[in-house]
This record gives sequence, structure tokens and C-alpha cells, in this order.
Amino acid sequence: MILAGTIKIVVILIVAMVLRAMLRKVIDRITIPGKEGKKPGLLKPLRERAPQALGNLISERREQRAKTIGSVLKSVVTILIFGIAFLEIMIVVGMDITPILTSAGILGVALGFGAQNLVKDFLSGMFMLLEDQYGVGDVVDLGPATGTVEAVALRTTTIRDTGGTVWYVRNGEILRVGNSSQGFAVAVVDLPLSYGANLAEATQVLERRVADVAEKDPLKADITAKPEVLGVEKFTPENITLRVTVKTRPGRQWAVQRNLRAQLMPALEEAGFTAK
Amino acid sequence: MILAGTIKIVVILIVAMVLRAMLRKVIDRITIPGKEGKKPGLLKPLRERAPQALGNLISERREQRAKTIGSVLKSVVTILIFGIAFLEIMIVVGMDITPILTSAGILGVALGFGAQNLVKDFLSGMFMLLEDQYGVGDVVDLGPATGTVEAVALRTTTIRDTGGTVWYVRNGEILRVGNSSQGFAVAVVDLPLSYGANLAEATQVLERRVADVAEKDPLKADITAKPEVLGVEKFTPENITLRVTVKTRPGRQWAVQRNLRAQLMPALEEAGFTAK
Amino acid sequence: MILAGTIKIVVILIVAMVLRAMLRKVIDRITIPGKEGKKPGLLKPLRERAPQALGNLISERREQRAKTIGSVLKSVVTILIFGIAFLEIMIVVGMDITPILTSAGILGVALGFGAQNLVKDFLSGMFMLLEDQYGVGDVVDLGPATGTVEAVALRTTTIRDTGGTVWYVRNGEILRVGNSSQGFAVAVVDLPLSYGANLAEATQVLERRVADVAEKDPLKADITAKPEVLGVEKFTPENITLRVTVKTRPGRQWAVQRNLRAQLMPALEEAGFTAK
Amino acid sequence: MILAGTIKIVVILIVAMVLRAMLRKVIDRITIPGKEGKKPGLLKPLRERAPQALGNLISERREQRAKTIGSVLKSVVTILIFGIAFLEIMIVVGMDITPILTSAGILGVALGFGAQNLVKDFLSGMFMLLEDQYGVGDVVDLGPATGTVEAVALRTTTIRDTGGTVWYVRNGEILRVGNSSQGFAVAVVDLPLSYGANLAEATQVLERRVADVAEKDPLKADITAKPEVLGVEKFTPENITLRVTVKTRPGRQWAVQRNLRAQLMPALEEAGFTAK
Amino acid sequence: MILAGTIKIVVILIVAMVLRAMLRKVIDRITIPGKEGKKPGLLKPLRERAPQALGNLISERREQRAKTIGSVLKSVVTILIFGIAFLEIMIVVGMDITPILTSAGILGVALGFGAQNLVKDFLSGMFMLLEDQYGVGDVVDLGPATGTVEAVALRTTTIRDTGGTVWYVRNGEILRVGNSSQGFAVAVVDLPLSYGANLAEATQVLERRVADVAEKDPLKADITAKPEVLGVEKFTPENITLRVTVKTRPGRQWAVQRNLRAQLMPALEEAGFTAK
Amino acid sequence: MILAGTIKIVVILIVAMVLRAMLRKVIDRITIPGKEGKKPGLLKPLRERAPQALGNLISERREQRAKTIGSVLKSVVTILIFGIAFLEIMIVVGMDITPILTSAGILGVALGFGAQNLVKDFLSGMFMLLEDQYGVGDVVDLGPATGTVEAVALRTTTIRDTGGTVWYVRNGEILRVGNSSQGFAVAVVDLPLSYGANLAEATQVLERRVADVAEKDPLKADITAKPEVLGVEKFTPENITLRVTVKTRPGRQWAVQRNLRAQLMPALEEAGFTAK
Amino acid sequence: MILAGTIKIVVILIVAMVLRAMLRKVIDRITIPGKEGKKPGLLKPLRERAPQALGNLISERREQRAKTIGSVLKSVVTILIFGIAFLEIMIVVGMDITPILTSAGILGVALGFGAQNLVKDFLSGMFMLLEDQYGVGDVVDLGPATGTVEAVALRTTTIRDTGGTVWYVRNGEILRVGNSSQGFAVAVVDLPLSYGANLAEATQVLERRVADVAEKDPLKADITAKPEVLGVEKFTPENITLRVTVKTRPGRQWAVQRNLRAQLMPALEEAGFTAK
Repeated sequence: MILAGTIKIVVILIVAMVLRAMLRKVIDRITIPGKEGKKPGLLKPLRERAPQALGNLISERREQRAKTIGSVLKSVVTILIFGIAFLEIMIVVGMDITPILTSAGILGVALGFGAQNLVKDFLSGMFMLLEDQYGVGDVVDLGPATGTVEAVALRTTTIRDTGGTVWYVRNGEILRVGNSSQGFAVAVVDLPLSYGANLAEATQVLERRVADVAEKDPLKADITAKPEVLGVEKFTPENITLRVTVKTRPGRQWAVQRNLRAQLMPALEEAGFTAK
Repeated sequence: MILAGTIKIVVILIVAMVLRAMLRKVIDRITIPGKEGKKPGLLKPLRERAPQALGNLISERREQRAKTIGSVLKSVVTILIFGIAFLEIMIVVGMDITPILTSAGILGVALGFGAQNLVKDFLSGMFMLLEDQYGVGDVVDLGPATGTVEAVALRTTTIRDTGGTVWYVRNGEILRVGNSSQGFAVAVVDLPLSYGANLAEATQVLERRVADVAEKDPLKADITAKPEVLGVEKFTPENITLRVTVKTRPGRQWAVQRNLRAQLMPALEEAGFTAK
Repeated sequence: MILAGTIKIVVILIVAMVLRAMLRKVIDRITIPGKEGKKPGLLKPLRERAPQALGNLISERREQRAKTIGSVLKSVVTILIFGIAFLEIMIVVGMDITPILTSAGILGVALGFGAQNLVKDFLSGMFMLLEDQYGVGDVVDLGPATGTVEAVALRTTTIRDTGGTVWYVRNGEILRVGNSSQGFAVAVVDLPLSYGANLAEATQVLERRVADVAEKDPLKADITAKPEVLGVEKFTPENITLRVTVKTRPGRQWAVQRNLRAQLMPALEEAGFTAK
Repeated sequence: MILAGTIKIVVILIVAMVLRAMLRKVIDRITIPGKEGKKPGLLKPLRERAPQALGNLISERREQRAKTIGSVLKSVVTILIFGIAFLEIMIVVGMDITPILTSAGILGVALGFGAQNLVKDFLSGMFMLLEDQYGVGDVVDLGPATGTVEAVALRTTTIRDTGGTVWYVRNGEILRVGNSSQGFAVAVVDLPLSYGANLAEATQVLERRVADVAEKDPLKADITAKPEVLGVEKFTPENITLRVTVKTRPGRQWAVQRNLRAQLMPALEEAGFTAK
Repeated sequence: MILAGTIKIVVILIVAMVLRAMLRKVIDRITIPGKEGKKPGLLKPLRERAPQALGNLISERREQRAKTIGSVLKSVVTILIFGIAFLEIMIVVGMDITPILTSAGILGVALGFGAQNLVKDFLSGMFMLLEDQYGVGDVVDLGPATGTVEAVALRTTTIRDTGGTVWYVRNGEILRVGNSSQGFAVAVVDLPLSYGANLAEATQVLERRVADVAEKDPLKADITAKPEVLGVEKFTPENITLRVTVKTRPGRQWAVQRNLRAQLMPALEEAGFTAK
Repeated sequence: MILAGTIKIVVILIVAMVLRAMLRKVIDRITIPGKEGKKPGLLKPLRERAPQALGNLISERREQRAKTIGSVLKSVVTILIFGIAFLEIMIVVGMDITPILTSAGILGVALGFGAQNLVKDFLSGMFMLLEDQYGVGDVVDLGPATGTVEAVALRTTTIRDTGGTVWYVRNGEILRVGNSSQGFAVAVVDLPLSYGANLAEATQVLERRVADVAEKDPLKADITAKPEVLGVEKFTPENITLRVTVKTRPGRQWAVQRNLRAQLMPALEEAGFTAK
Repeated sequence: MILAGTIKIVVILIVAMVLRAMLRKVIDRITIPGKEGKKPGLLKPLRERAPQALGNLISERREQRAKTIGSVLKSVVTILIFGIAFLEIMIVVGMDITPILTSAGILGVALGFGAQNLVKDFLSGMFMLLEDQYGVGDVVDLGPATGTVEAVALRTTTIRDTGGTVWYVRNGEILRVGNSSQGFAVAVVDLPLSYGANLAEATQVLERRVADVAEKDPLKADITAKPEVLGVEKFTPENITLRVTVKTRPGRQWAVQRNLRAQLMPALEEAGFTAK
């Protein structure tokens, strides 16, 4: 009887360890982005976006993130498997485990209600990290706050806004992420004209000046494509709005916008246009 | 005793494999859009819309999507069936599986609360893909953000707005999709007139000019139907608003709108109308 | 022992098939709108609305919808009954089905949380179809979007708005439906008058002109009842608003409204009234 | 053994039928409003409102509603009781009903999540009908839409607004009902006066004119009580607002309001008051 | 065996009846407000408000309410206890009650989801009644609607607003109650003054006039305390607002407010102050 | 057998009573704020706020509150423990308690859904009382309403606003409490200046006057610290706003504010500043 | 039999105590921030932020917080383990613990619904403390209220706003924290200019003055970096807005802002610029 029990316990422990090893392998395969190896179908089945200009830095960041998340998942798996093994052994030993299961169940339900935000925060964080939606230094709009990312964690993201205020945003509260620092950016300048102005002429004036500006020094390095004068964006009985857009390096759009505003308005004024 | 157990285990494994094969077949039939074959009744029972102008490209895209989703569903089925088979075998071997079932239950409930957003995201994504609501390159309004689709995945959709900001939108947060790149588009231009203007004359001026514009070169290729001057859209004590609409190729409506604005307003001015 | 088991299995299968046949009958009776036959009490117990002008077309559409929904419900019933029969047979064969039941339970709960939107979408769609709230071609306000219905499905409704954008609206997100294409419509025109104007005279002017317009050609076919000048709708210290309403054929209200605006305002101007 | 089983089955069926008959009685007593008989305490314990002017029509409507709801409840009871009897018989016959119960449970929970809106709709409808909150022809504000009730059903209420649009409103979405066609109505007219006007005089002018109007013909039949000039409702630095209220027959308040506006403003103007 | 069963059944019935009697006593003690007897600690542990001016009428109303609620609670207790006794007897008789319990459970959960609003409505109503938050004739702000209470029931409260519309508000939707008819009320009048006016003088003018008015006849009976000129409530670059407050009898604050407005503004004008 | 049962019952009762006594002790220790004794770690682990100026009155109030809450908790504990003991005895006596447990379970779930607001109200009230967030007479902003606290109960808080309306606010609806009567208050006065005014001079004028006012009689007693002229709070193209702040006794900030407004504006005017 | 029971009880107690000791160790390791020791991966896996300028004070605060939270968690663990041990012993003694487990379950579910806010509050508080999002004296924006932190507790945070009102904010209601007192702050000043102003000149004027101000005494100590004139932030047809930003010591940004406003506007005026 005692012998059989001992054998059973040993078997339980072996199976638990084998299972744990297997699941750790699976976690590794899911989280670590392989070198041309197989990728998990769940997260990026239809993503045809080219990996343009991501470079080495990003892939290192991804690897580090995958490691962190992997280690968390492995801890969870370890706790779960050895917890169950512990219970199995208690049965072998002859204990009634109903109280333990019931307590766990009640605690699970009770926390399930109260702690769902917590679980949500961690799961959201995990996926945002795996999908590499943003990194430290990016300028992001998370919904509850907008600013430069200072720190990325599983439960919260920390950003600092233009007023210097540090915002701790729980990842589960982030319904969508707007990242203004990826690939390229667009500076948009809206210029008011008085009603009845000669639009063809105004457009020419703007095109000449914006081409000029784009090739001179403070903005030359930031502008990555020929600026465009899109045309009449809106008009009210009082005003006409002309829109100019310029593709810029990511993170430089605000500076370019300010500079263009300061240069295009005087150009229109010199040419005799007024805003009102 | 041991023999019976072995036989039982073999039978369990065989049944599991047969069931798995069957379910994979079912998944294939549900997801892959057949060549005039039977279609699943659940998703499109009453859709009488003609497949006008969808072409080969779309059907290829659909097939690829069906494959991706099918492979995800198949993985889920595989895990589920072999998980149950594993438990059945443990029973045969003489293990008490209550702790495992309870743990799974508690985990299921606990995650059920916290992870419901996750499940929602994946299910929403799956259906949006199967229904082909949008593809890469479409200009869409998803609610949390509006822009050009950059990537489509099961959990998130990535779009880039006019300011160059990349938006990661969780599919479960998308309550309705507005796709501005399907079939055709309509450019709508509202023109303000001062109160008391001669409406019949203004309408004639607009009709002449818009017909002119629609047949000249920059817009000729984009406009797909004769423009219409709809008439008085609104009037306040200060203003009358006339509306002109033009059917355009999808994605070209904004350019057409800007161009029309720049051409119709001067036409009215030349004819002596004012906005205020 | 084996004989008894075989008999039991046969009985189970027979009972399952009988039950299935019965439930299919019930579904038919609930969904198909009978020819003067009994109607299910659940959906229209107190609907005293006359079936005016619905015609043959609608009843065909209803029949087709009933068939689609019926076939979906029948599939669900078939899966359910044979699933249970399968489990009963496994018990007879001597399998322990606890793992299967528990897995199903956990999956049920887990999906119950995450997939409730899905279930909601399908159930809402089913009822909206059975109640015939709208059909392809109707102009509807679904809440998340407004436009012409392009396609009706169990999970989503597709509409196209005036700007040509296609909207995919999940049926579960539709809290109320506004259908502007049923029976008749009303064109409402609000006319501003300067404070202190002679209201009796203005009313007369409007009555004469609107009667005139309603009998001339572009609007004659669309207007189905004598127009009414309702009177003073609102007044602020600056303005008085007079309201005119005309009953029109469904879907023509907007054209009638635009036309009336273009005709009634000049009428007032000619009679010497001003808006400000 | 077989005999005992047969007896048991017969007993089960008899008990089921007795129970069903009893519950149908209870339902009748709850839903049908008795002639001076006992009323169920749940719905109207503290309602001291007199049944003024409800008449025969209403009580017929109530009776019909009670019948409809009663028949629905009875169907539910029948299905429930015979379902349980069916299961009891299966136990007697020797079947293991665990799979059936579990399936029912899972379905119950799964639907419980997804179909809660449905249940909510039916329950809300049932209570609104029993409490007779509105009937066909009443002008109601249901929250999602405002208009004249066209049809009343257990799941949805159909109303038509002033623009002729038909609104299908789910009963569960109706958080409060505003019924403008019950008992009486009040026409409220707010009149602007320039700052610094002689209020005593203006009040007298209004009182004289409104008394005049209330006794002449178009409004005489609609006005049910002496009109009141309430006094200064609001004042801003620019304006003073005087309020006049008149009790009218239900449904006539808007016509009375429009008529009063058209008559009271000229009265003030004649007396030399201005709005600005 | 049969004898033992009979005895068991008798005992069960006796215990049930004793328990029921006991619980009815408890309900009585909780709901009925005793004459200087013990009060239940749950609802008013820290209420130090004096029962000023509540009088006999209120206590009668309270008693009637307590009775109604008590009778509802007693019905619930009776159903519950005899239901359980019925099940106990069925066990004694030898029936398997699992199907009944499971059905009840599923129904409970299914309704638990869909009917929670219903339960919420009844519970909210019960507590609002027990706490005597309002009665028929009070002017209340319930959130979804504001007006005079017409009827109070366990599920809904009926009020009529100033426009004569009857509002049915579900008690569960009432998050907070504002009762303007309890104890006393305050009439608040804000008076605009042009920027740069002599405030000390204006205050004196107002103080004199408001004291005058409070002692003359139409308002004398309604005003219960000396009026106060509070001082400068707000100022913008254009205006100064002076506030006057007067304590009035409950329900008379609006009439007092209107009267004061009509009297204080001319007083300021006479003294040479302007609003702009 | 009967003897053994009797002994068991006695033991059960003794254990129940011991447990109850123990739990009552625990409740006492948690709720009653001890004299320098140990405090429960849950509610105030990190509260470093000094108990400045709370005095005897508050501690008495706290003690009374603790007693009330303690007695409620003790009742709950008593009901729970004797309920379980009752069930244990029924088992000893040989009853099958499954129906009772199931009924309790269903009722628990059903109420769990519908009555969660109730539980929320009581729990919120309990904690707000224990944390002493406000007392009768404090001026508080509870979110749904703002005013002076009239009564504090476990389920609702009653406050009276400045218009005399009594608000019954359910404690569970109070998401945050703003208490304006604790420790001290700050009177904030914003003064408008025309654009281009001499700020240094205006600041001096204000500093002199505010110092003057703070030392004269009506405000001397209310102002507890030297007033500060903070400086330019905001400027628009039209206006500059200067801010003055003064620390006052709690509850006096509004009177001080009104008085300061009436004194500071004339001071600026005398010195030749204008608001526009 | 009795001996075996006694041994079992002893074993249970020993195991319970060992488990408790182990879990307390784990809690210590998770909560206490070690000296270069291992850190728990859950909370800060990817936080690369340097610990700049946190100093000794913070680490002491952290340690104290960790202790508090640790002690709470340890109490929970102790209650849980000894509770289970108590139940195990009752089984050994021969009690039927089903009633206890069921009661606990029902209570757990019932509270799970009603008390989820409570659990949420405590969990949120715990994590905010562990992540050190704010401390007493910081100026924070918690969403429901903004002000200076007065007290930090597990359930609520107490802050005092600029008007002196004390706000009790439940930690679970805090969706994001904005801390304006961490590391550094930025003073942002927007200056209006009339349309058509010479921007280059205005920028120079501002640069000169702001550099001047930053080196003089009242602001010198607060400004930590060279001020920047960012450029044209916005322009409307009426106005141009220039933005100036200055990095300051945390908590000093508002004073700096006010001072800069008072100095920069006169500078522009002296140079002949106007705001309108």
C-alpha cells in the first residue's frame, strides 16, 4: 500500500516535470521571434507590412521583451503544474482535498470579479509588448494621456506629457494606441484665406514657398518627400482654408509644422492675401 | 486488467483522431468560400448584393484569409481533443483528475472575467476577416481611429491617419466599420449663398460649371457618373446652402471634393453671388 | 451485457431522431408566417397595425427569411441532440464522460464571457429579420450609421451612407431602428421670419404657394396629402420659425423638402418678408 | 420492477398535470384585472391614483393584454413542467441524464450571457403592458425615439415620429416612458421681452389676450382650464422671459402652443413691447 | 417504512410552518416603524435628523407602506419555505429531484442575467418606500424625469412634469432623488448688473426692497425667514451678478422666485442701475 | 444512536457559540478606534496625516459609528453561524439538506445579480463611515449632488443643496467625496483686467487692498493666513485674469469670496483699471 | 481510530504552518525591494528608467510601503491556510462540511458581485503603492479630482485641491495617475499676437526677454534648463499664438508660468505688438 503510494507520487512528479518542460518549449516558440523560423499564427496571420527600416535595435528589443514575457508565462505554468501535482499527491496520501478546491474556487470567483481589471491590465500589456506597438521614447496617444513613453511594464505604461506631468496609464485602459513615431510622419498646415480670394494664385504662392523652405537648411533634413498643396479643405461663409502637407521624419512633424506656419503665412501676406 | 486498459487507451486515441479529422473537414467547409459549392448559412443567408467588380484579387485574398482562420481553428480543435483524450487516458490509468478539472475550471472562470476582451478581440477579428469588411489599403473609419489600413491581424487592426500617426485598434473595440473604398464613393460639396439670392440662377450656374469640370482632365478619370446639383440643403436666417454631389471612383472623393470647391466657388462669385 | 448495450444505443438513436423531427416541426411553425394559420404569440401578440400596402413582395421576402432562420435553428438543434446522443452512447459503452462535460462547461463559460457579443449579434439579427424591421433598399437610421441598406445578414447589416461610405454594423449594436421608407414619409420645412412680421399674412402666402407647388408636376407624384402650414414652431428674440409639413411617398421626403425650400423662401421674399 | 416503473411514470405525469393546472390558475389571477376581486400586491401596492376617465375601452385593452401575457406565461410553464417530467421518466427508465442536464446548463449559461438583452426586452415589455404605460395612438417619449405609438409587442414597440420615420425600439432599452396623452396636457409659451420693459403692464396685456383666445373658437374646445400668466421665468442681461401656461386636452398641447404663440406676440407688439 | 415516511412528512410540514411564522414575525419587526420600540439598525443607524413637522399623516403613510412591503416579503418567504418542504417530501417519497433542482438552477441563472433589472427595480422601490424618500404630491427630481409624483409603486414611480407629460420611471434607474417639498425651500434670484456699478448702493437698494416685499401680502405667507442679499456671486468682464436668497415654504419657491424677479429688477432700474 | 446524535448536536451548538464570540471580538477590534492600541492595518496603513484639531467631538462620533457598524456586522455573523449550525443539526437528524442548499444557492445567485447595488451601497457606506469622510453639517460634493449633509446612513446619505432641495444619494453611487469643511478652506477670486494693463501696478493695488480687508472686521475672524496675489492666471487676446487666494476657516470660503469680490473690483476701478 | 485521527490533525497543523511560513517568505521577496537582489519580474520587467535623483527618502518610503502591504498579504494567507486546516480537521473529526462550504460559496458569489468595487479598490491601491506612483505632498491628477496628496491608503487616496476641498478618491476609480511632481516640470506659456505681426521679430523679442528673466532672481532657482521659444503653435483668422516653454523644478511650474506671463506680455507690448 505504502509502496504503491510512493510509486504513484514519483510518477506524478515525473509527469509534472515532463509536462512543465514541454510547455516551456511551447512558450519559447510562441514568444521568441524566430530567425526565418515558423511564427505563431495567432498574432500575425495577415500582416503583410514590410519590416522596412526596423533594423537591429528593434529586433533586440523584441527579443528582450519576448524573454520577459516568456519568463512570466513560465512561472505561471510552473506554479500551476506543481500546484496540481501537490494536490494529486495529497489524494494519494489520503487527504480529502474538497476544502482546498472549494476555497480555491471561491477565491477564484471572488477575485474573478474584483481582479478582472488586473488580469486585463497584464494581458493587454503582454500583447502590446509582443506586438511591439510602442517603445521607450515614442510619442504616443494612449487615450487617457498623450506624451513620450518613459517606461513600459506589464501592468502600466508611464508617459510624460508636454507639461512635464508623468502619467501612469494602466494597460487595460488603453483601447487603442496612436504612435506618432513609426516609419514617417506628416506635418499638416491649414492656412486661412478671406472669402473671395484668388485660389489659383494663392496655391501657386504656397507651392513656390513650401518648395523653397523644404530645400533650405533647418527643415531639409526633416522633410522626406516633396511637400504638397492639397487644396481647399473647408469653406465657411467667412473663410477658406487651404491645406499643405509635408512628409517628415518621425517625431519631427511638430517642429516642421511650426516652422512652416511661420513661413507660409508671411508669404501669403506679402502676396496680398488676408485671412479675414 | 492491464490489457483492457491498453485497449481502452488505443480506442480513445483512435476516436480522438477520427473526431479531429472530421472537425477539420467541417472547419474547411465553413471557412473556405467554395466554387459555386455550398455556403455556410450562418454568415450570409440574405446577402443579395451582387459580387460586382470584386475580381480575382479579392477572391485570392479571401482564400488566404480563410486558410489562416482555418488553421487557427484547427489548432484549437487539436488542443481540445487531445487534451480530453489525455484526461480520459489518465482515468484509465487510475489517476484522480478532479484537481486538474477544478484547476482548469477556476482558471477558466478567472480568465473568463479578465480575458473576455481578448476573446472578443479574436472573435471580432475572425468574423471581420471572413466577411471581408476591409483589406490593406482601404480607407476606413473604425470608430477609435480613421485612416488607411496598414495591417490586418486577428487581434488588432493597424491604420495610419492623415497626420502619419499609426493606430493600433483592438478588433473587439470596433463596433462598426465604415469603409470608404468599396465600389464607389460620393464627393459632397456644400456651397454657402447669402440669404435672398436667386436660387434658380445659382443652380444653373453650378450645373453648367460642374458639368464642364467633370469632363475636363484632372477629374474626368475619377468621376463615374453625371454630377447632380441636389438643391437647397439647409437655410438659416443668414445663409442658404446649396449641395452638389458627384459619384467618384473609390478613394478619389476627397481630391474631387477639393477640386470642385476650388472651381465652383469662383463660378458663383463671377456670376455675382456672395456668401454673406 | 453487450446485447443490452446495443439495444440501448439503438433506442437512444431512435429517440434522438424522433425528438429532432419534432423540434424541426416546432421551428417551422414558429418561423414560417402561415396562411391564416396560427401565429406564434411571442412576437406579435398586440400588433394591431393593418398590413396595408405590403403586397406579395414582402410576404415572399418574409418567407425566404423564415426559411433561412429556420435552417439555422434546425442545424443548432441537430448538433445539440446528436451531441447528447453521442454522450449517452459513450456512457453505455463505459466511458467516463466527466472530462468532456467539464471541458464543454469551461469552454461554455469562457466563451460565454467573450462571445456574448456574438450571440447578441445573431439573436438580434434573427429577431430583426423575423419582425421585418427593414429590407434591402430601405433608408434606415441604425444608430451607429445612417444610409441605404445594402445587405442584411444574421450578424451584420451593411448600409451605404450619402457620402458613399459602406458601413458594416453589428446587429447587436443596433439598439433601435429608424426606417424612413415604410408606408409614408413627411417632409418638414422650417422657414425663418424676422421678429415682428405679420404672421397671419405670412401663413396665407405660404398656404397659397405650397398648395400651388403640390399640384404642379415635379412634386405632384410624390405628395400624397394636402400640405399643412402648422404655424409658429419656435421664437427667439431674433427670429420666428414657421413650419410647413407635407406627407410624401416613402423615400421622396428629402427631394420634396429641398424643392419646397427653394420655392417657399422666394414666395415669402416676394411678399416682402425678410429673415432677419 | 417494470410494473413499479410504470406506476411511477403514471404518478409523475399526474403530478405534472396537477401542478400545471395550479400554476395556470395562479397566472390567471396575477394577470387578469379582476372585477373588484383581489389584486396582486406586487404591481400596484401604493397606487392611489383615481381611475379617472379611463372608461370601458381601456379595461378591454387591459383584459386583452392580460390574456396575451397570460398565454405566454402558460406556455413557459407547460414547457418547463413537462420537460422536468420527461427527465424524471428517463430516470425511471434507467437513463443517465447527466449529459442532458449539463448540456442544458451550459446552454443556459451561454445564452444567459448573450441573450440577457432578449430576456430583458420581454420582461420589460410584459411589465409595461401590465402597467398599461401606453397604448396604440399615444404620443410617447421612449428615450431612443419620440412619436406616436403604432404597435405594441412584447419585444419591441413601434412608433412613428413627426418626420414619418418608423422607429422599432426594443422594450429593454426603454428606461423611462414619457406619455403626453394621459389625462391632460399643458401648453407652455415663453415670450421674450426687452430688458427694462414694464412687467406689470406686459402681464396685464397677456392675461387679457390669453383669456380672450381661450374663449374663442379654434382653441375653446381644447383648453380645459383658465390660462395662467406665471410671471418672469428667467432673465439674462439682454432679455426677460415671461411664461404663460394653459391646461389642454391630451394631444392638443402642440396645436394650442402654436396658436398661442401666433396670437400673444402680436398682442405684446401692439402694446409697444419689443423683444430686443 | 411507509409509517416512517409519513412521520417524516408531518415533521417537515410542522417545521416549515414554524419557520414561516418566525420569519413573518421578523419581517414585521423590520418593516413596521414601532412606537418607541426597537428600530432595525440597518436602515437608520446614524440618522440624527429630528422628526420635525412630520406629523400624523406621514406616520400613517409609513405604516401603510410597511404593511404593503411586509406582505410582499411574507409571500416570498411562504413560497420559498413550502417549495423547499415540497422538495423534501418528494425525497421522502423516493423521487430523484436532481432534474428539478437543475432546472431551477438554470432558470435562476438565465433569469439572473436577464431579470436583474427587475430585481433591482423592486429592491430599489422597497428601500425608497421604507426610507420614505418621497410621497404622492411631492415635486421630485429622479434623474430621468422631474415633476410632481402621481403614484408610487414597487417597480415604477409615476410623475407628471410641468408640460403635463406623465413619466413612468423604473425605480432601479433612480440613482438619487432630489425632493423639493421637504421641510423648507430656498428661492434664489440672480440679478445682473453692468460692470463698474456701485455695489454697496445696489446691495442697499435690494435689501430694502426685498424686506418690503417679504412683508407684503402675496409673499408674506410663503416666506419663512428674513431674506438675505448674499453679495457678488460671479463676475465676468461684462457683468456682475448679485444673489438674493429667501427661505420659503416647500413647493412655493418657484412662485416666490418669479415674484421677486418681477419686483427686484425694476427696483434696481429705478435706482439707476443697468444690466449691460 | 440517538444519544450520539444528541451529543453531536450539543457539540455543534457549543462550537457555534464559541466561534460567534470569537468573531464578535474580532469585529470589535477592527471597528473600534482604540486608545493608542493596535489599529487594523487594512484601512490606514500609510496615513501620515496628523490628527490636528479633531478634538473630542470627532472621536465620540467615531466611537458611535464604530458601535453601529459593529452591531450590524455582529448580526450578520450571528445569522451566518447559527444558520450553518442549524443545517449541521438537520444532517445529524437525518434530513437531506440538498434542496435547502440549492435553493439558497439559486437565491444567492439571483439576488447576487439584482442586489449587487444594494450590497455595494451598504459596503460603501460602511467604509465611508469608518474612514470618517464626512459628518452631519459638512458641505460636501458627492457627485450626484452637492450640499450640506443632513443625515448619514449605511445605505444613503441625505444632503440639502443651496436651493433647499433634499437629495437622497445612494452610497454606492458616490465615487469620490469632496469635503469643503475639513481643516481649512481657500477663497479664490479671479479678477479680469483689460489687455495691456500695467500688471505690476495692478498687483500692488490688489495686495494693498486685500491686506487691508483681511485685517478689518467682517473678514478678520474668517481669514486664517495672509492673503496672496498669485499673479496672471490666464490671458486671452481680450482679457487678463489676476488671481487672489486667501486661506479661511472651513465653511467660510464662500462668504469671504463674495466679500472680496465686492471690495477688490472697486479698488481696481478706482486705480483706473478696466475689465474690457 | 482516535489515535489515527489525532495524528492526522497534528500532521495537518504542521503542514499548514510550514506552508504559511513558505508563503510569507514569498510575499517578502515579492514586496520588499531588495538591495541589488533579484526583483520580481511581474511589475517591472521592461522598466529601463534610471533611478535618477530618488535618493534615500524614497527608498525608505518604499520599504515602509512594502512592509505594510506585506503584512496585509500575510494576514490573508494566514486566514486562508488556517481556515482550510480547520475544515480538514472537521472532516477528520467526522463532521459533514458541505453546509459550511456551500454557505461560503454563496457568500463568496453574493459578495463577489456586490463587493467587487471593494476588491478593486484594495488591489489598485496595493499596486499603485508598490509601483510608487505618488506620495504624500505630490500634486496629482487622479481623474475624479486634482490636488495635493494628503494621505495614501489601500482603499482611498486623500487629496486637497486649490480651493481647500478635501477629496476622498477610491483607488479603484483611478484609471490613470498624472503626477506633476516627478523629476522635472515644464512651464508652458502661450502668447497671442494679432494676425499679420512680424513673427521673426516677435520671436527675437521673446527670446531675449525670457533669457533675461531666467537668469534673474525670483525664477533663477526654479528654472533648470535654457528656455525655448517653440514658435507658432496655432493660428486662426484672428490670432497667432506663440509658445514658450521652460523646464522647471517639479512643483514650481505654475509659479514660473504666472511670472513669465506677467513679464513676456509687456515685452511684446513695448516692442509694439498687439494681441488683437
